Amino acid sequence: MRARDLLADFPTVGLDTPVIEAARLLADQDLPGLIVVDADGLPFTILPGTQVLRMAVPGYCQDDPALARVIDEAHADLFLRQLSERTVREALPRERRELPVADLNATVLELAALMARTHSPLVAVVAGGRLHGAVTLQALLDRAVEA
Amino acid sequence: MRARDLLADFPTVGLDTPVIEAARLLADQDLPGLIVVDADGLPFTILPGTQVLRMAVPGYCQDDPALARVIDEAHADLFLRQLSERTVREALPRERRELPVADLNATVLELAALMARTHSPLVAVVAGGRLHGAVTLQALLDRAVEA
Repeated sequence: MRARDLLADFPTVGLDTPVIEAARLLADQDLPGLIVVDADGLPFTILPGTQVLRMAVPGYCQDDPALARVIDEAHADLFLRQLSERTVREALPRERRELPVADLNATVLELAALMARTHSPLVAVVAGGRLHGAVTLQALLDRAVEA
Repeated sequence: MRARDLLADFPTVGLDTPVIEAARLLADQDLPGLIVVDADGLPFTILPGTQVLRMAVPGYCQDDPALARVIDEAHADLFLRQLSERTVREALPRERRELPVADLNATVLELAALMARTHSPLVAVVAGGRLHGAVTLQALLDRAVEA
């Protein structure tokens, strides 16, 4: 079993996509994370769901969740609205993540090791200079527990 | 909207649960992670799906995924089988993670900040000395994008 047997189409967002749209895509399609592509359609970064959420949470709340508690419930409910038109490019963390990217021939064990090390529940599959789709943790586990 | 409005029952595993069973639970129920409980039924640790997978991947492959490539496809397919009866206790990483745990009154913003900081797509809700369930990233996002 190789990445080519496990991959599926996976939606992407661009660097100029508003964060609110990225969050909506994640929610509506129950995705484990997002692939952010560059102008060539290749992975620029791959964000686990928690890190998509991170783009939407004010920095002061991340550093000290006690500060999140001072925001009242009505305002807390609307935290995504505060994003307005902020784009993925503007909200991305400064540090670059190791990209969980594999080729079509990656084995189940390679994909699992990559997910474990990069803390990413999805791996983008790139070959011949284009993005073929992604292998998700669920797809990999579903097959691995049957083996 | 508070944690009490977003929480749902969430299955747990014990420290003596075999890792293979934990992986199967994650796969069968499409969970974003697992709550590992202690003898009192309280969260001992909370593992995102990638870190459940990590328990099943040999250490040498995590450090250097190129080494995963030397394992042939037939053996790689069966990597979960190699676990045999290894338990969660035996496979847990040494470093203790910050526990993503909240009380029933945590707001959406508190929950989001906690998920973002701990890289955990689920937060366990504990009150009155017992585990009430969990709030998942998907449950939180579903409500937040509607707000």
